[in-house]
Amino acid sequence: MNKLGVHALSWVGGWTEEEATTAIEGSARLGYDLIEIPALDTGAIDVDGTASLLEEHGLGATISLGLDPTNDITSDDPAIAARGEDHLKTVVSIARDLGATHVCGVLHSAMKKYMEPATEAGIAQCATILRQVCEAADASGIEVGLEVVNRYETNVINTAAQGVALCKMVGTSNVKVHLDTYHMNIEEADSARAIFETGDYLGYFHIGESHRGYLGSGSIDFDSVFRGLRQVNYTGPIVFESFSSKVVNPQLSSMLGIWRDLWDDGEDLCRHAIEFTKAHLQAADRVNGLVRHPGVGGVFIG
Amino acid sequence: MNKLGVHALSWVGGWTEEEATTAIEGSARLGYDLIEIPALDTGAIDVDGTASLLEEHGLGATISLGLDPTNDITSDDPAIAARGEDHLKTVVSIARDLGATHVCGVLHSAMKKYMEPATEAGIAQCATILRQVCEAADASGIEVGLEVVNRYETNVINTAAQGVALCKMVGTSNVKVHLDTYHMNIEEADSARAIFETGDYLGYFHIGESHRGYLGSGSIDFDSVFRGLRQVNYTGPIVFESFSSKVVNPQLSSMLGIWRDLWDDGEDLCRHAIEFTKAHLQAADRVNGLVRHPGVGGVFIG
Amino acid sequence: MNKLGVHALSWVGGWTEEEATTAIEGSARLGYDLIEIPALDTGAIDVDGTASLLEEHGLGATISLGLDPTNDITSDDPAIAARGEDHLKTVVSIARDLGATHVCGVLHSAMKKYMEPATEAGIAQCATILRQVCEAADASGIEVGLEVVNRYETNVINTAAQGVALCKMVGTSNVKVHLDTYHMNIEEADSARAIFETGDYLGYFHIGESHRGYLGSGSIDFDSVFRGLRQVNYTGPIVFESFSSKVVNPQLSSMLGIWRDLWDDGEDLCRHAIEFTKAHLQAADRVNGLVRHPGVGGVFIG
Amino acid sequence: MNKLGVHALSWVGGWTEEEATTAIEGSARLGYDLIEIPALDTGAIDVDGTASLLEEHGLGATISLGLDPTNDITSDDPAIAARGEDHLKTVVSIARDLGATHVCGVLHSAMKKYMEPATEAGIAQCATILRQVCEAADASGIEVGLEVVNRYETNVINTAAQGVALCKMVGTSNVKVHLDTYHMNIEEADSARAIFETGDYLGYFHIGESHRGYLGSGSIDFDSVFRGLRQVNYTGPIVFESFSSKVVNPQLSSMLGIWRDLWDDGEDLCRHAIEFTKAHLQAADRVNGLVRHPGVGGVFIG
Repeated sequence: MNKLGVHALSWVGGWTEEEATTAIEGSARLGYDLIEIPALDTGAIDVDGTASLLEEHGLGATISLGLDPTNDITSDDPAIAARGEDHLKTVVSIARDLGATHVCGVLHSAMKKYMEPATEAGIAQCATILRQVCEAADASGIEVGLEVVNRYETNVINTAAQGVALCKMVGTSNVKVHLDTYHMNIEEADSARAIFETGDYLGYFHIGESHRGYLGSGSIDFDSVFRGLRQVNYTGPIVFESFSSKVVNPQLSSMLGIWRDLWDDGEDLCRHAIEFTKAHLQAADRVNGLVRHPGVGGVFIG
Repeated sequence: MNKLGVHALSWVGGWTEEEATTAIEGSARLGYDLIEIPALDTGAIDVDGTASLLEEHGLGATISLGLDPTNDITSDDPAIAARGEDHLKTVVSIARDLGATHVCGVLHSAMKKYMEPATEAGIAQCATILRQVCEAADASGIEVGLEVVNRYETNVINTAAQGVALCKMVGTSNVKVHLDTYHMNIEEADSARAIFETGDYLGYFHIGESHRGYLGSGSIDFDSVFRGLRQVNYTGPIVFESFSSKVVNPQLSSMLGIWRDLWDDGEDLCRHAIEFTKAHLQAADRVNGLVRHPGVGGVFIG
Repeated sequence: MNKLGVHALSWVGGWTEEEATTAIEGSARLGYDLIEIPALDTGAIDVDGTASLLEEHGLGATISLGLDPTNDITSDDPAIAARGEDHLKTVVSIARDLGATHVCGVLHSAMKKYMEPATEAGIAQCATILRQVCEAADASGIEVGLEVVNRYETNVINTAAQGVALCKMVGTSNVKVHLDTYHMNIEEADSARAIFETGDYLGYFHIGESHRGYLGSGSIDFDSVFRGLRQVNYTGPIVFESFSSKVVNPQLSSMLGIWRDLWDDGEDLCRHAIEFTKAHLQAADRVNGLVRHPGVGGVFIG
Repeated sequence: MNKLGVHALSWVGGWTEEEATTAIEGSARLGYDLIEIPALDTGAIDVDGTASLLEEHGLGATISLGLDPTNDITSDDPAIAARGEDHLKTVVSIARDLGATHVCGVLHSAMKKYMEPATEAGIAQCATILRQVCEAADASGIEVGLEVVNRYETNVINTAAQGVALCKMVGTSNVKVHLDTYHMNIEEADSARAIFETGDYLGYFHIGESHRGYLGSGSIDFDSVFRGLRQVNYTGPIVFESFSSKVVNPQLSSMLGIWRDLWDDGEDLCRHAIEFTKAHLQAADRVNGLVRHPGVGGVFIG
């Protein structure tokens, strides 16, 4: 029931026609339902060409991004915040033209290591701007996912509870929490419980390992994560994300501290990820069945 | 908020005056709130003497037992089932006279390795008899806990969902599910989730390791277990249970297959257990707080 | 590198020609390398027919069994022990005629709930008889795996350390420890560590869930298990085992206390199991690589 | 056998006489063996006064620090690197004068979010300078621990394997790997396995939760961690580290992104941590015993 997706940076570091073809063709061939395209440099995306490729390969799309210090909507400089609002609205337009269903990521602040806490005024301004952006997105039927990331990548929302609180401040029906197992592993007391508490506010979900490499080769308890998703009947996208120093995006890779070659072969990585995910989702479905099933032997109690 | 208890067989294999003194004095000294006294041989318990010892040491008590093939209330032999009903009512009387708050254990069948599944008629009869027993217990303010045990110790209720179903068949307000981490580790799809689904039906809780030795030295994920108890705001007893071939109860030890010396020193075992439990409960309290807390830095979102 | 196998009882409860065809054809079609055939009733196996089916489908085989009270080689009745020796040698012959590579299971005692501990004399006799059996097996190039099972299924070897000790008593080069995640979950302090300590004595490996249903739908930490196998460079068979009340073997199912329908569709179960296993083995391979890799960025330290 | 310690920042944000007294008195009273004093601003430490307080309360000490961009020994600016060497040697002198046994932390680079990978030349220079520092430390019997931290806090050593490689480059007998569960949770494929592979190179160990709050209230599997330490017979310090926005060090807290109040009461936090640690260490000792124990019932096999 969930659409399974993959982040483009498992395939390619940029978005030339050749790169877009590689990523879209490969994702479709491995059985993914959608690709998440990072839109840090909106000018670099050939929207019509990408839309054609998506259609040709029968693949869906979502768009993700992180703001930066020049367009941070928590900034106390009104010009910077205004640039952020413009940028977010531009991305919503691109998403609409691509037929993308979701815009997600660090939309609420710069994606960077801050050196000071967020301020009350900055958060309030962020919520106000996001409301405008979400309303624009809603006009095109696009959902907006506010990604909860770790302390080194934002100072605004580091936990699911904070994400829900920010969604409530924004207050539109299409604003949702975007969770990511990589970040939850650092910030949440209990990832499955955080999913549970997020409940219907959950709108987008990243699965990434603790070191951002192959699923199952790190410290994340994916059994609990997938059981959590099934417990709350989450029906949104589940998108695999992984980074290695072998595939580099100039804007993103240094921000994310991708120093190590966690893998060489993106296609093998992505094939493994979808098989791993399907096997775990099927197991999590069984758990849901078992914990609610009162039968004993051939006899059903009750 | 939960009363912390310990099963008597961590201290002693029988219940002579000397054994009762050892177990009650030791449990109180280590800071436990209650002791669980196994009542397999009801004639062997000096009720007045035990009540005095409990009062002297300010310790609470609960009574546990398992039926056997001679008094199995799922039996299709009415005489055997009637003996079971009598036995259970005798134990309720003893509990009342001791001032015990709970009667728990394998009250619903023999505690043995069955060689055939339970029958629909046997389960129905079991529920009917338990209703009588629970009503008798309720007259003395005693709660009854039906222990969900593994496939080798009963064929009636092996999962929490089955336990809830049997409670519903019994239908009194004082009948509850008695869960045990040792058994859940074998039978449940997910112990924390089983606790969650049991919810208000949970009335008694055993913590035991996967091999029944020191807490934390086996395969049970106690973090998840204690978080589960906190998530459902469980307020009932939490009772530590452990078995080693060093302390033998003639009736119980062979039934439970206690072949190994998991420990030598019951007092050290019980001291460790209460420290381990308190440390985990405090951690689980923090989890409850963290997953619901929307604050960011000095700013509270929402 | 490991051969992946599946226990026949995921498919069928007996071994008629039709059942053998179903199990062998299905196992081969799903990509398994071998099938484990239970040989409780040796007379029920059409050896030539089974050998033909295995050859036709290009599938390997192993044979497993448990002794019972009539042929228990720890018995103090010499006639019973002698029947056990005969039975084990018969099974070795069948294995040879089938081209099976391994004979494994509870070869060292009855597979039953004992009511008393093993005796020193019983264990010594068991080792002596197993030596004869292993020598006979060795003549046909067959490895013998002594399965370490939980306290309710034997009183002889419940832990890997005990399994290694028994192998040392037997003393042949083809006697190995047969571990099973289902049993380890009950008896071992730490399954991955038990695998590590077993080391080169490990010769056969069962993967089964804590409740014996779908892999990943119970309480076993399979990440740790597969990492443990990779850490010791285990190259032997990895065989999936699962039981449900939907597929019944008259001798085995009641002994194992299979009261619940953990699944309905054995083929779906087995397809999931091999996908789950492959995904985890690939992840465990990555772990081995990562923990030994000193590279940082493009630079390799050291 | 391990000395148990606590990081001063659980108590106080600076090191005035009053702060030093609070931290040292409190740590000793709770039963810790040593305190880890952060030496970011070496001028702020009253060495004689601190030494007196340590002696008065019978508490040991270790010193930790992180370099910064002005004294980064991987810098290609020789003046910056030289300042780093001076700073490290100053800290070694302070450690000697305090009677501290270890100097540890991010000694190998600035503790900051880098925006580019480490270079081969930078790493070589780092190793050369560290060799000088370690030799100076060795003259006073001080061990040096190179802390492996996550990608957002250094670009030099993010995994234990890299830490071992850097120790080999440094090449003195007193240079060791300093591991920290908080960082391992982000970077290691498997924390217990990383401890195992580090083996005798392990010289200093931080226990911190995934979110840096109360032990047991996050996502780290401390059972595995403590079992790993016991498996390799680690005898060095085990030091608890936690950070909350309630206790702020101006240099450290923003670098570490401490935006949230994970706790209010440092004393309660530290009391819980030592109880949690002792309970887990005792459990891990039992695991070591159990996995190597071949006894069955009263009989010892082998």
